[in-house]
Amino acid sequence: MKDVQSAFDPRGIDLQKVGVKDVHVPLLIQQRDGGTQQVLGCVRLAVDLPRHYKGTHMSRFLEVLMRWSTEGLSSRRLRVVLEELRDKLQAERAEIQVSFKYFLPKRAPVSGSLSVLDYDCEFAGFLEGGHFDFRLGVELPVTSVCPCSREISAYGAHNQRAVIRVRCRFRPGQYLWIEDLIALVEQQGSEEVYPLLKREDEKYVTEHAFDNPKFVEDILRDVVAALRREPRVVWFEAECESYESIHNHSTFAYHVEQKGENLRPTK
Amino acid sequence: MKDVQSAFDPRGIDLQKVGVKDVHVPLLIQQRDGGTQQVLGCVRLAVDLPRHYKGTHMSRFLEVLMRWSTEGLSSRRLRVVLEELRDKLQAERAEIQVSFKYFLPKRAPVSGSLSVLDYDCEFAGFLEGGHFDFRLGVELPVTSVCPCSREISAYGAHNQRAVIRVRCRFRPGQYLWIEDLIALVEQQGSEEVYPLLKREDEKYVTEHAFDNPKFVEDILRDVVAALRREPRVVWFEAECESYESIHNHSTFAYHVEQKGENLRPTK
Amino acid sequence: MKDVQSAFDPRGIDLQKVGVKDVHVPLLIQQRDGGTQQVLGCVRLAVDLPRHYKGTHMSRFLEVLMRWSTEGLSSRRLRVVLEELRDKLQAERAEIQVSFKYFLPKRAPVSGSLSVLDYDCEFAGFLEGGHFDFRLGVELPVTSVCPCSREISAYGAHNQRAVIRVRCRFRPGQYLWIEDLIALVEQQGSEEVYPLLKREDEKYVTEHAFDNPKFVEDILRDVVAALRREPRVVWFEAECESYESIHNHSTFAYHVEQKGENLRPTK
Amino acid sequence: MKDVQSAFDPRGIDLQKVGVKDVHVPLLIQQRDGGTQQVLGCVRLAVDLPRHYKGTHMSRFLEVLMRWSTEGLSSRRLRVVLEELRDKLQAERAEIQVSFKYFLPKRAPVSGSLSVLDYDCEFAGFLEGGHFDFRLGVELPVTSVCPCSREISAYGAHNQRAVIRVRCRFRPGQYLWIEDLIALVEQQGSEEVYPLLKREDEKYVTEHAFDNPKFVEDILRDVVAALRREPRVVWFEAECESYESIHNHSTFAYHVEQKGENLRPTK
Repeated sequence: MKDVQSAFDPRGIDLQKVGVKDVHVPLLIQQRDGGTQQVLGCVRLAVDLPRHYKGTHMSRFLEVLMRWSTEGLSSRRLRVVLEELRDKLQAERAEIQVSFKYFLPKRAPVSGSLSVLDYDCEFAGFLEGGHFDFRLGVELPVTSVCPCSREISAYGAHNQRAVIRVRCRFRPGQYLWIEDLIALVEQQGSEEVYPLLKREDEKYVTEHAFDNPKFVEDILRDVVAALRREPRVVWFEAECESYESIHNHSTFAYHVEQKGENLRPTK
Repeated sequence: MKDVQSAFDPRGIDLQKVGVKDVHVPLLIQQRDGGTQQVLGCVRLAVDLPRHYKGTHMSRFLEVLMRWSTEGLSSRRLRVVLEELRDKLQAERAEIQVSFKYFLPKRAPVSGSLSVLDYDCEFAGFLEGGHFDFRLGVELPVTSVCPCSREISAYGAHNQRAVIRVRCRFRPGQYLWIEDLIALVEQQGSEEVYPLLKREDEKYVTEHAFDNPKFVEDILRDVVAALRREPRVVWFEAECESYESIHNHSTFAYHVEQKGENLRPTK
Repeated sequence: MKDVQSAFDPRGIDLQKVGVKDVHVPLLIQQRDGGTQQVLGCVRLAVDLPRHYKGTHMSRFLEVLMRWSTEGLSSRRLRVVLEELRDKLQAERAEIQVSFKYFLPKRAPVSGSLSVLDYDCEFAGFLEGGHFDFRLGVELPVTSVCPCSREISAYGAHNQRAVIRVRCRFRPGQYLWIEDLIALVEQQGSEEVYPLLKREDEKYVTEHAFDNPKFVEDILRDVVAALRREPRVVWFEAECESYESIHNHSTFAYHVEQKGENLRPTK
Repeated sequence: MKDVQSAFDPRGIDLQKVGVKDVHVPLLIQQRDGGTQQVLGCVRLAVDLPRHYKGTHMSRFLEVLMRWSTEGLSSRRLRVVLEELRDKLQAERAEIQVSFKYFLPKRAPVSGSLSVLDYDCEFAGFLEGGHFDFRLGVELPVTSVCPCSREISAYGAHNQRAVIRVRCRFRPGQYLWIEDLIALVEQQGSEEVYPLLKREDEKYVTEHAFDNPKFVEDILRDVVAALRREPRVVWFEAECESYESIHNHSTFAYHVEQKGENLRPTK
């Protein structure tokens, strides 16, 4: 059968990325404690397409993905997947993005009641020549209490669910586990969020949040400060979005930084 | 050219609904004040398909919709659209669902600052024989303040954005305008939501919300009570969903009622 | 601490459903082969709220759910969960809805290449008095080839991805496994959908689909016929939606049926 | 009342963006023919926040937006909005993103039947110092017919709906109207998409699409070639995503280019 994809393409145009996306597959993620966690992954895979080929061989992305879906994924393993993709597709660059909900146990602050909270996470890997770049992302819910509302009102203060989104890159040979990055970020809201709270916990989180009012700007600055202090992180972008309880829209703050460089925001 | 749709179908199966959905089109909605409001409509149209036809003629749904898209839509007009659909498609039943964001001016409670708030609305019409059934739906945001959190905490109370969803049917020959239904429902939260609030307004809505703590159950019961009191409404279903600021999930309450009958919840 | 939820409510309004939704949690689903499959569940839990109580105790839903999340779920197990919910919340009715992506191995039709395909599934359980009602839902992708386009064109025919959605209830003491229901429904499109296809497979699925052109009406009628023939099914609703490749909207067909009764469509 | 936002912030952290998002508002868009089209806008507004301020004044974003919502928006008008935002919020940079569905009349290719098709569009403006940067985006549906499937099969070929997404920037003082950019991009699929097609049109689009088979790589290369030829465009990014009818995932191709520079892909 004719290999249409390998035909010569006369347009002379190199394409930076060709591949598949929205592939759903169960994956195993390396946990900090040495075990693995099975997750529902949503995957995007791509390589570059040199000008002389009409198309890439899309089925090979699936072949590679299916084989790796039973191995515990970490940044190191992503590199191996990308090397295999690049070789099988005769490309110069290869990349992968994997989004998934990751669960961690969460103890209520007073009763100690145990439940599991879902965190939206993302692994992204980029391979070009001998260079491999890894980016870790987490998105997590917090409570935000408005300092202005608290200050100007005789009592009460509007508050709401907010999310913090962080992506970061690491110093060569170093990295943070998902668990580490979540722990660093999660405490920057007015209060953390829990699936299961008994009455004594609800009293605690209400009062603790009110003792700790923060604008989205405050939350983001505390995230920025924490990421600047973490020596393993060399690049990050961070956003806090608050689903305002008094409006039908969100407020947000965003920042991106390569440590030691003055980056222009790109988002 | 052969009319494949009109071919005889040997399976002997009547289908209750065949049609098109996710059609986006600008539409005009009749306002209470006599004018019309242009909206972005998302439309679903369907008719029944008798057993002897292989298929329906889908392009006719679009022809009818395009012609009516320049007329102001109301429940009365929907009936005419459905009569035309039923006739052009040689069906016995026809139905339409139109979802759209509807905007109403909103004055901040103290400063009087003016802005416009978006309400998710739905018109649904069903025609069968000589009987026409119309259903109006609105979904709107409110603030909810937790009574338990307020009661047990030394200060503060968790609060959040919540939405109220109501659908209703009316006594023959009667109806509520979108504006009427929104006014009836919107006041049942702990506080209303505004796009634009100045500082004096923010103080007001914070304090007013705290004076008015309500569970989703409280909000829904007040909605139910208001709809029971409204004589033009003969059937309704109502839901309140609260995007809890202390959790990563929602709480909700739901009720459906045909006045004078004991309905089983179906949702 | 005061139990605000248990306070007397003066409004005299029974609410049909109060509970939690959009709770994400890893769950185990019973497979037909005797094993279990871990899935990412999105859960809704509810009970009724008698008129004399101000509110329900939302944290108990999470307590029950967390405990059951490590057991393999089946219709039988759902009943036990609901009995526990009803008792812990002093309610008369309890219900659960669980949505999840379920994966099954899929062999390419010629090469036999193996991959896994994702199916959107739903378990729903309703308990009232001594009566337990279970509903199984699946949503799966197929290819649809337009018979009209094929007939009237000199060559080719437009085709596209379509989805079939089925929910069914079973005769007392009987049920279909997810695997059974998928097998019954999946073959009703013009062709099945596969994650991984080699060139020889692509030739096969293209030709097989063209030998088998079907409108959404045809696909749905074949689904209806298959569900009528299956004696374990006593009630079903089914929809086929086709993401038309020549339009920017969908076509669809829908039917609901209680075997032996003339149902009015409700969706 | 105390102005909490203007309080001194001790952390010494400049934030690149603070603002509001998911604001829904009706807007007027300048058409090429001199008129305006009312659309449903979803808006994001942001400014930078210097280190010495605790927060920005979020209500001012809404004040500015409400005032401009009754004026026809074009790139020139966006600049005025941003100048006003920057001044009112005492910032150095300001930006706006507006997403909306834009409708254009579409005549069926043979019958000439008229309908309107929805295009997802985006205006983005960035103001810094005296420099104003404008970016126009469109996302539109096309049909894609697989060349490999057509070549290797005895008859037929799988095809499906695909979308092309393009964003571009222009030479100083120049621009393309939305209508111009859509016309340039829309013809690059295997065939265009129409809301309303009669039987003779369906025959035409089926045959024309089959005469014109294209991989996502082919469609994207033709888009790239067309954008390279258009002298007013100086920067663009383009993506084609195909909702494969034989799979449950998408294939895609992506490219970004500053004319005359070798850009690294960032998406």
